[in-house]
Amino acid sequence: MTTVAIAYHSGYGHTKKQAEAVAAGAQAAGADVSLISVADITEADWATLDAADAIIFGAPTYMGNVSGVFKVFADATSKPWFSQKWKNKIAAGFTNSASMNGDKYASIQYLWTLAMQHGMIWVGTGMMPANKKESTRNDINYLAGFGGALAQSPSDASPEEGPLPGDLETAKLFGARIVEVATQFAKQ
Amino acid sequence: MTTVAIAYHSGYGHTKKQAEAVAAGAQAAGADVSLISVADITEADWATLDAADAIIFGAPTYMGNVSGVFKVFADATSKPWFSQKWKNKIAAGFTNSASMNGDKYASIQYLWTLAMQHGMIWVGTGMMPANKKESTRNDINYLAGFGGALAQSPSDASPEEGPLPGDLETAKLFGARIVEVATQFAKQ
Amino acid sequence: MTTVAIAYHSGYGHTKKQAEAVAAGAQAAGADVSLISVADITEADWATLDAADAIIFGAPTYMGNVSGVFKVFADATSKPWFSQKWKNKIAAGFTNSASMNGDKYASIQYLWTLAMQHGMIWVGTGMMPANKKESTRNDINYLAGFGGALAQSPSDASPEEGPLPGDLETAKLFGARIVEVATQFAKQ
Amino acid sequence: MTTVAIAYHSGYGHTKKQAEAVAAGAQAAGADVSLISVADITEADWATLDAADAIIFGAPTYMGNVSGVFKVFADATSKPWFSQKWKNKIAAGFTNSASMNGDKYASIQYLWTLAMQHGMIWVGTGMMPANKKESTRNDINYLAGFGGALAQSPSDASPEEGPLPGDLETAKLFGARIVEVATQFAKQ
Repeated sequence: MTTVAIAYHSGYGHTKKQAEAVAAGAQAAGADVSLISVADITEADWATLDAADAIIFGAPTYMGNVSGVFKVFADATSKPWFSQKWKNKIAAGFTNSASMNGDKYASIQYLWTLAMQHGMIWVGTGMMPANKKESTRNDINYLAGFGGALAQSPSDASPEEGPLPGDLETAKLFGARIVEVATQFAKQ
Repeated sequence: MTTVAIAYHSGYGHTKKQAEAVAAGAQAAGADVSLISVADITEADWATLDAADAIIFGAPTYMGNVSGVFKVFADATSKPWFSQKWKNKIAAGFTNSASMNGDKYASIQYLWTLAMQHGMIWVGTGMMPANKKESTRNDINYLAGFGGALAQSPSDASPEEGPLPGDLETAKLFGARIVEVATQFAKQ
Repeated sequence: MTTVAIAYHSGYGHTKKQAEAVAAGAQAAGADVSLISVADITEADWATLDAADAIIFGAPTYMGNVSGVFKVFADATSKPWFSQKWKNKIAAGFTNSASMNGDKYASIQYLWTLAMQHGMIWVGTGMMPANKKESTRNDINYLAGFGGALAQSPSDASPEEGPLPGDLETAKLFGARIVEVATQFAKQ
Repeated sequence: MTTVAIAYHSGYGHTKKQAEAVAAGAQAAGADVSLISVADITEADWATLDAADAIIFGAPTYMGNVSGVFKVFADATSKPWFSQKWKNKIAAGFTNSASMNGDKYASIQYLWTLAMQHGMIWVGTGMMPANKKESTRNDINYLAGFGGALAQSPSDASPEEGPLPGDLETAKLFGARIVEVATQFAKQ
């Protein structure tokens, strides 16, 4: 059974909702999924990360990149990095922020860069964008994330109100895709 | 009088419309503005670039970064680069693409990187994002560009239909901002 | 047999040498390798790309990103992109430039972004950096590329003089790594 | 008198040495310089930042981007961001890491992105690279930073041993450049 660990930070609950949608999609695709909140990561969580076939990183975009809390976690991954423990694991990433575009791509760029330091193998959304005149806000991949899954929650929206349904559905499909690739890669 | 050169490429006419909106804003702010299409740049155009107080770069985002035609122009700027002819000029950038987010930020990152090689001084939008629940598509800076101005034109929209009015108004204000900063910087 | 296509541009011959080193490493690892110069790509070359298990992109860094010639090729990949013909292929990238650091990382970021638009799966160097006091210029991964393989050729060096031997050896190992991952991924 | 605030984080002392070199260069160019360690920033420090003509950000590159401690500080700048208190200040950035190249450029990209959110005006090194066959490790801008100043300290070097002298001299000239631009921009 393919094991997936989702290492995420959520400041106000929106990115947590996105993480849960990714988890739901990954579970539906047949994976054993662990949701790890990096703000209060435990020794057991680190062991889960070390054992996973795939690690999906998730963070809100704050002030132009992943949140400081997530970056503190990323710095702490220098421990498994030294012995390249995560080498050849499948990696992927997602982010949520208040604006349609903003600097979300910078966060995805960073999560990829982190994975590259670890020698991991990166999988993006594999989704076409919904960008026609007839496209609507809740279409799959309306924000058009390629390197990772994107979500948007208005700055004054509660976690109940955001991310929007289309972005959560995008997150689910994204979770499923990571499992498919990880499963294929693990085949003997 | 502050002189501004807008060096842009437009494949289908959408980015040209954005360039014209930037030009209109810069003119309204009192600048002498030259619109230069880099696909067919002339010796006179190069002289205009060399003489300008500010250069604003503009390109569509194709396959995840500025168009190939724009990049060919960027490579040709290695000539003024060798003698650092553009050093300390004001620089700025804008991009248009079909998706809400996509990889627009990558294009802005690149235009900044190009300007940095030239020793130029970079000015972004200086605009807050429109990202509340009540925000609507045609609000100023709805796409939330900070490093440069962003516009979106649906993939099946004609240049008459896109970029959308709010993005063009954003482009105008952006043009005006570049003139203000360039004028302040040129003061004796 | 794993098939690898290396789609590269070389302006003066240095990046070609790096491409040949990547090819040598991939061949030694058991792959069927095609070297494709994107400056004069043919219909047969496009068919080779469509059929490959892995595509490795390579370009010099000019004025802060991949060369204009390479970007023109990248724009032309919008044809296979429309039908997502390259989805789930293994992708990787390399770059050469005159400086130790410069903006090489920007080129690797771009090659990854291109691959993500195509729904490809990205593999980096998986190499630790040589960055101790005792490290020397020709150590493996002295430049410390993670997302892709890096090489440096002084601005006045002929292709016979650069890239330096250590960077070419790094390129060879990089080619071998891509084959290993592609082979594992193709297993049934 | 032009006022410059240097907001930096240093984990082991190397980036602190780089920050001090930037400060020395800025002082020699006639500025009133404040060195602010963001790991223990005070209310008085925030007031200094709010009052400065120019803010220079500095951080080590850890795991592919600015240190987590610096990013926590960057997130806290959302307070002046809300009222755009830093709008039109001059901004610049520097980073140190153990490798020659690595992901230093990613850190500079981030510091620029942060400044763009604040509506600041970005100044790079304005330096040509030292990348000829005859170039040596302690030449000015041997690492070839354009968007910001780069330094390298081997992973096992003490702060007394690294950054190397050439990188510290580069940092000094960089500090002086920021003052020149800030002084020109403040002219009435």
